[in-house]
Amino acid sequence: MQNFTYFNPVRIEFGEGCIQKIGKDAAQYGKKALLVYGQGSVVRNGILKQVTDSLDAAGVEYVVFSGVKANPVASHTREGIKLAKQEGCDMIVAVGGGSVIDESKAISAGACVAHDFWDFYSGKETVKTALPVLDVLTVAATGTEMNGGAVITNEETKEKLGIVVQPLHPKVSYLDPCVTFTLGKQYTAYAGVDIISHMLEGYLTNDDPYCTIQDGYVEGVMRAVMDAVLTCVENPKDYQARAAMMWGSTLAWNGVPLLGLGNYGYPCHMLGHSMSCLYDTAHGASLSVVTPAWMEVMADKYQRKLAKFCRNVFREDISCPKEAAQKAAVLFRTWCRKIGAPVTLAEIGLSREDIPSLRENITFCAPTWGMPEYDEKLVTELLEHML
Amino acid sequence: MQNFTYFNPVRIEFGEGCIQKIGKDAAQYGKKALLVYGQGSVVRNGILKQVTDSLDAAGVEYVVFSGVKANPVASHTREGIKLAKQEGCDMIVAVGGGSVIDESKAISAGACVAHDFWDFYSGKETVKTALPVLDVLTVAATGTEMNGGAVITNEETKEKLGIVVQPLHPKVSYLDPCVTFTLGKQYTAYAGVDIISHMLEGYLTNDDPYCTIQDGYVEGVMRAVMDAVLTCVENPKDYQARAAMMWGSTLAWNGVPLLGLGNYGYPCHMLGHSMSCLYDTAHGASLSVVTPAWMEVMADKYQRKLAKFCRNVFREDISCPKEAAQKAAVLFRTWCRKIGAPVTLAEIGLSREDIPSLRENITFCAPTWGMPEYDEKLVTELLEHML
Repeated sequence: MQNFTYFNPVRIEFGEGCIQKIGKDAAQYGKKALLVYGQGSVVRNGILKQVTDSLDAAGVEYVVFSGVKANPVASHTREGIKLAKQEGCDMIVAVGGGSVIDESKAISAGACVAHDFWDFYSGKETVKTALPVLDVLTVAATGTEMNGGAVITNEETKEKLGIVVQPLHPKVSYLDPCVTFTLGKQYTAYAGVDIISHMLEGYLTNDDPYCTIQDGYVEGVMRAVMDAVLTCVENPKDYQARAAMMWGSTLAWNGVPLLGLGNYGYPCHMLGHSMSCLYDTAHGASLSVVTPAWMEVMADKYQRKLAKFCRNVFREDISCPKEAAQKAAVLFRTWCRKIGAPVTLAEIGLSREDIPSLRENITFCAPTWGMPEYDEKLVTELLEHML
Repeated sequence: MQNFTYFNPVRIEFGEGCIQKIGKDAAQYGKKALLVYGQGSVVRNGILKQVTDSLDAAGVEYVVFSGVKANPVASHTREGIKLAKQEGCDMIVAVGGGSVIDESKAISAGACVAHDFWDFYSGKETVKTALPVLDVLTVAATGTEMNGGAVITNEETKEKLGIVVQPLHPKVSYLDPCVTFTLGKQYTAYAGVDIISHMLEGYLTNDDPYCTIQDGYVEGVMRAVMDAVLTCVENPKDYQARAAMMWGSTLAWNGVPLLGLGNYGYPCHMLGHSMSCLYDTAHGASLSVVTPAWMEVMADKYQRKLAKFCRNVFREDISCPKEAAQKAAVLFRTWCRKIGAPVTLAEIGLSREDIPSLRENITFCAPTWGMPEYDEKLVTELLEHML
């Protein structure tokens, strides 16, 4: 285990009815909120009204800013920053999934500086302060509700990049499993893959063999989340399964699974981000295509951990590690199929013809992700394995 | 899963050499610290000097207050409060195990009020504010370094009681596994039992069958901690095993394992606290005597979870739940024996003659613990099972 610092001052309000608390809490942080949401599903399903009722009751003003895309973009983020500044907003209330919350975080940082917010992403500037963010999570997937990360796609530079900094931790996150009842089977499956992927990549790729505590945490939470997702896609209104998926997604990406791991990477996220960036593929869909293929191609390199994953998560005792590692890939692909997530490029509308563009984008982004070993040859092999 | 609120703003500094950071951090919180430690082992092994060197370098003044007992007592806590007030200390620096940190927390609350600190324990008053506490943990056991709890024994009333409140979260906890190298085999074993017990009691006794995420977390961390303790008692200077034990102890009692559990109790802690209170038995020693006996006597009542514990922690697949539950008790006792922890009253110097006093104290305390069902009959059966 390597040295680490951990500080996660996000307050979590979990459970049915918790959204009612947001108004009173918001009043502690300011007078006027930028109220951010996406494409309007929160209007239709009444979640936004729960939030505005609570803000109204507490006398908190708000300016609506909607239209966040599934992969939030820099141009829209800039609009939000402009509006927050113009209106003198002193906090952000985000109502949505990871995209809405991530863009809200980027706005919260951008609203506090004179320079362009993308300077934080290109590494020119660091985030020193940000407006307080309170969020109502509507999709249990990205874990952004309990971390300091925010991923934005820059349409001009064709980059999908993330930053993780202390000031971007939300102040309070409201997690009501009921709000995910209306999430369709397809997006529930995508979310499930995303949650598992967050834990899986650090677990499999880290080079410190002594992170047994982290391994145990991750294996236990993964097992429970995988079961819960299976139930959620079958019965979307199963409160307990939705609750397990929601809380599992938060624990998956609250920083703890990664503490002390040493070197690790996000190869599957990197590959998937290029798909989202070029073809607007849903994040979870890209991950379910990428991950089993990546496991098979990389089975020898990550043999020890894939075999452990096979044993402790799928409870399959296979004595030969090489065989166990390959089996892990098969079992993971089977789980993806069972929940209805795509596992080939064709299932997300891509084909062999798209491989050159994807390869170009991935190899361009790989050094930024700290994985220059993902060169043309390896990326081609991986992409062809997804056909 | 039941509704919950979670907020844990403790900063953790983990790893070899992290104690060096304390001076600079302390300077952010105040000018003069009450420097609290126990019976002097931190003087002899040089840990205190690491702390004072860092405080000196940062220009932070301190007043030494030592002599905290293994089970910290109210009278000594009152002395600390008096000294902190007299000297105008604006923070507490605690150097020690759970006892030192718990007493430091109690002092931090008591130093901010005019009334006696025990009023917080008797329920007459609630803690609204406290001096900032920074701690250097020297025994990985109680988890106090990342929670708002503090347990104190009142010698006059013969009560050992705890409070858990938000203002008692330490500001920063410094976890350097190297400082536990000098902890002897016996106390390492006690600490190991304590860590497991923290996770085990909530896991086994809660009445919500849907806490699968919590179960997975707890099972994974327990498994890793149990392995680590076995290594630590054999090889006390194994950095990685000490690190796993230390981080495992923090995750065991940082509040997360208990979130959303519904009703649960600490019967083994309750029984053990009476042993500590009456005979000054080490906390972990009392737990290793109590826990396997409690499991056997209560095997039918907690059958489902004991069987799950047997399967997921000990990896023993026994199809009959009744048999699996009994087996869990046997396997847990075997683990206690392997690490060298006592499993009978005789091994902690008690005998049948002590049962009446113990029974009287336990049944007196049971309602305060919320477990009035632990009456004379049940307590007698449990205690006799420990002979």
